Amino acid sequence: MISPKKYAKAAKMIPKGFKTANEFFNYVYTDDEMIWMGQNTNHLHDENGIMEAMLESIKKRDYCKYPPSEGFPELKELVLKDLGLTDGFEILITAGGTESLYLCTNDILGPEDNTITSDPGYLIIDNFASRFGDHVKSVPIYNKKCGYKLTPDLVRENMDKNTKLVVLIDPLNPLGSCYTKEEIKDFADLAEDNDIYMLHDITYRDFARDHHLVADYAPEHALTIYSFSKIYGMAGMRIGGVVGVPDVINSLRSIVINDLGTNIVAQRGAIAAIKTKNQWIDRIRNTTRGNQKIIKQAVDQVEGAFIPVYPSDGNMMAIDLYDTGIKPLDVAEYLLDKKIFTREGSYTSKLFGHRYLRVSYSVPTKDVEYFAKCFLEAVEALKP
Amino acid sequence: MISPKKYAKAAKMIPKGFKTANEFFNYVYTDDEMIWMGQNTNHLHDENGIMEAMLESIKKRDYCKYPPSEGFPELKELVLKDLGLTDGFEILITAGGTESLYLCTNDILGPEDNTITSDPGYLIIDNFASRFGDHVKSVPIYNKKCGYKLTPDLVRENMDKNTKLVVLIDPLNPLGSCYTKEEIKDFADLAEDNDIYMLHDITYRDFARDHHLVADYAPEHALTIYSFSKIYGMAGMRIGGVVGVPDVINSLRSIVINDLGTNIVAQRGAIAAIKTKNQWIDRIRNTTRGNQKIIKQAVDQVEGAFIPVYPSDGNMMAIDLYDTGIKPLDVAEYLLDKKIFTREGSYTSKLFGHRYLRVSYSVPTKDVEYFAKCFLEAVEALKP
Repeated sequence: MISPKKYAKAAKMIPKGFKTANEFFNYVYTDDEMIWMGQNTNHLHDENGIMEAMLESIKKRDYCKYPPSEGFPELKELVLKDLGLTDGFEILITAGGTESLYLCTNDILGPEDNTITSDPGYLIIDNFASRFGDHVKSVPIYNKKCGYKLTPDLVRENMDKNTKLVVLIDPLNPLGSCYTKEEIKDFADLAEDNDIYMLHDITYRDFARDHHLVADYAPEHALTIYSFSKIYGMAGMRIGGVVGVPDVINSLRSIVINDLGTNIVAQRGAIAAIKTKNQWIDRIRNTTRGNQKIIKQAVDQVEGAFIPVYPSDGNMMAIDLYDTGIKPLDVAEYLLDKKIFTREGSYTSKLFGHRYLRVSYSVPTKDVEYFAKCFLEAVEALKP
Repeated sequence: MISPKKYAKAAKMIPKGFKTANEFFNYVYTDDEMIWMGQNTNHLHDENGIMEAMLESIKKRDYCKYPPSEGFPELKELVLKDLGLTDGFEILITAGGTESLYLCTNDILGPEDNTITSDPGYLIIDNFASRFGDHVKSVPIYNKKCGYKLTPDLVRENMDKNTKLVVLIDPLNPLGSCYTKEEIKDFADLAEDNDIYMLHDITYRDFARDHHLVADYAPEHALTIYSFSKIYGMAGMRIGGVVGVPDVINSLRSIVINDLGTNIVAQRGAIAAIKTKNQWIDRIRNTTRGNQKIIKQAVDQVEGAFIPVYPSDGNMMAIDLYDTGIKPLDVAEYLLDKKIFTREGSYTSKLFGHRYLRVSYSVPTKDVEYFAKCFLEAVEALKP
């Protein structure tokens, strides 16, 4: 179980010279020259209608009014259509996928219920689950044998009679591992057979070469978390949502937090983002995939360093540095001096965080080339 | 106690022809001709830097990045300075005041703890308190004797040994009643003597002729809820915050929901809003006070109708129609046909909602004049 205190500690693993995480993030945010490879954000959008829609919304003074609390019907329909879940599913729009994750763990877990997550994984979900349920079992998946992901077999080995929730981050932050159709079907059967809910966080879905939804195979046992922060490049707008069958969504409605709705400008941008997606998605996918190769070539030059999952199906990857004797936090600090923001592993892993640096590469290719150069310099400068 | 089900029912009291509250709110939102007097929103801002700051932020593509999770340091300082709470206080920026209200009730209330609120009042707070604590006592305050507000004496009468939280909405939505300095001091003593927290929701503070903070007199027992939705006219941006002493805010930090922060564009707008406030606040106050008079003149022409609190210290008021025999929901529906959005009372009161219509008047004066005309027509058309 990850306690709030431990979570705070993990989140606070920040470079020297900063008193609080808030101060550190304000620093990287405020420096316009900073290259953002630390938060899986996407800086590859050009003129594509998203910005235009948000500017229009502000000029119209939309922001004086409250939005409908569950989200604009147009946006709700677009998300369901984007997922192909138009029949028998409903959606709530929330302030980021994070709020949806919170609502789901709050709703599903009673005090006796257990949760299964993975390590590495996205620690705030462990934190939420530990607030509402009993035990959170974070299964170590940082090894080749299981393909660096929480497999159906690993869930079977680790579940008990009180397991009520399994968290599938797919593709997985920070590694970029992703599930096959067969694995997703297996999870669906497992969920139905044992009356377990699968919390399917598909934040990085559109970066994947191939992706499948638990909701297609076990609709009654799937909660699908949608985000506009990554492929759509709207992290700072804080908009996402949760999709489920009517019974599940009705239950979430009874524990709603922001009953005055989600930011109107974000919703306008989100509508434009889905509508324009087919115009830009290939370019962004191609760029991120090319960027991965540049990083791989650099890492391959470093003895002892390796990328656990390559190619990654996300817009981020881990670079394992353990056998080089170099500490990931030292590399992150070195790179920060070069105006490159990355994160060392403890932000996403309690057990393996000391092994890897996490880098996202949905930034212009010239920035990734600069990263590759600086990374090699860092290794040279820091090797024991 | 207001159960989630009852809350949903109250929130769903919507005009004929709409299946859900979401559908209704989407309708009033989408119709550009609709006059918004139904949600206490503010439509009186002109060019003042707020819009400009938000446009700038979007043009700079700020929205690709995550904000620091607790809010930009500049914004945090500006809010504390605006309240004169610079010494010994901290603040968290959240997605609207609503999220702050949720965090506070979640943090303060244990399963044995009771809460005191008022009826009329803001029902979502009762709903939150009922999720985390035991009993929520909603004290009837719709009478002249107590000045249409929850007084210190009423709290003393209604508290018990498990009372842990008292909710002061000040000025009070929907009535516009407000506290004197003596009353606030009395509440501060009451809180300290009985180790009770005062949840001081000051959303409408800047509309008041005079306003005082519990935090000035009982800092350790006050949680001050700040909002950018009303005086700043930014309801659709969903931004607010909570101010308290470090111990209180540290405790809230351990149960944070949106650990990836609050919408960046909203924060940029909020910074500009506070910085420009002295340029526009007198104009907005003068207009809303003038608008009140227009409504008063209309209501005075209707036998049996009256405004319980006049002048209101908020940007909204209740119009009591009980003795006219006309149902508030019928008036709301009549006005909706005339493209005026108002709300009947059950949105803000279980006990007295059948008596009044709630109207906000931070809209252009010509719209209020049109409302006054249509209101008189409605009374004529609907009288028994």
